[in-house]
Amino acid sequence: MDELKARILSEGKVLPGDIIKVGSFLNHRVDADLMGRMAEEFGKHFDLSKVTLILTIEASGIALATICAYKWGKPLLYAKKAKSDNIENGLFCSEIYSYTYKKNVTVMVESEFIKPEDHVLIIDDFLANGEAIRGLTDLVKEAGASLEGIGIAVEKGFQGGGDRFRKAGIDIYSLAVIDSASDCKIKFREN
Amino acid sequence: MDELKARILSEGKVLPGDIIKVGSFLNHRVDADLMGRMAEEFGKHFDLSKVTLILTIEASGIALATICAYKWGKPLLYAKKAKSDNIENGLFCSEIYSYTYKKNVTVMVESEFIKPEDHVLIIDDFLANGEAIRGLTDLVKEAGASLEGIGIAVEKGFQGGGDRFRKAGIDIYSLAVIDSASDCKIKFREN
Repeated sequence: MDELKARILSEGKVLPGDIIKVGSFLNHRVDADLMGRMAEEFGKHFDLSKVTLILTIEASGIALATICAYKWGKPLLYAKKAKSDNIENGLFCSEIYSYTYKKNVTVMVESEFIKPEDHVLIIDDFLANGEAIRGLTDLVKEAGASLEGIGIAVEKGFQGGGDRFRKAGIDIYSLAVIDSASDCKIKFREN
Repeated sequence: MDELKARILSEGKVLPGDIIKVGSFLNHRVDADLMGRMAEEFGKHFDLSKVTLILTIEASGIALATICAYKWGKPLLYAKKAKSDNIENGLFCSEIYSYTYKKNVTVMVESEFIKPEDHVLIIDDFLANGEAIRGLTDLVKEAGASLEGIGIAVEKGFQGGGDRFRKAGIDIYSLAVIDSASDCKIKFREN
């Protein structure tokens, strides 16, 4: 998606450790209009008529996934990390490693909110090693639901997570795939 | 807001410790259409022409605040809790006590994203003791920006946070104020 790539180039910052920061429009300050256009772009790729549920993970996936749910008229479910007092009954859970926080994290959804008959589209802002998305696909499996695909705003292609899902035959569509960020220079994968 | 109150009565659960669970449409599974109508309701109360920035806090405030930002054509900023590696430069911070997690939490925004000339409307899904909202108002003050008001979906009136802000002269508008939840029976404050 050219508009997203242009924003990454003009506003993105590359930090040590190949961290790519796009907090000015994607995951701290949020450009909701841009997210509306990102939702339209996902809508060109995925067959939304099949989708019954949008699934994402707190916190940074929520903004984009909410706009998608709103524009498409679908319910959204966001997985939570770790256990809070407000979640009491049946849970689907998966353990993932968070590279951001450098520790294992449990991601979970209340089991009543994903049914075996659901057709799930996963939406997230970022994909790097793919741990968070792997956790979400685990939850879909645990529920016995169908995974229709995975829509990602920014994929760090050089960290391999996205390509692992592609090799496994999953329909994953990333609006911008960054294949290298060395010397603070961002290079995108060709379409 | 009658529609919201009806949903709270039909789907809300009262848990021990006066916890009111509305995860089926507000802060786990998300009814984005309902949130669109909640944004319209806020728009009747607040003078949006003055507002330059919507501010909320991760994670559960993000969905509603994103819909507000999208419908109103405003930028959104969500405060983060605790420090991750992806936040490196100037920060505005405030320490709050999280009753959900029973510990102190630092809420923060990158200082470049709130300017002294900003007119900020705070949006959040829940208000109980008001600690999270107090943290957000601290960030607005620290930035030297103006607070236009506070829009809340569900206020637990019996915990007093909202009334403290009202007494301080802050324009706070809650779409549903629950004044008691004893014996698992939810009672709303009269308008």
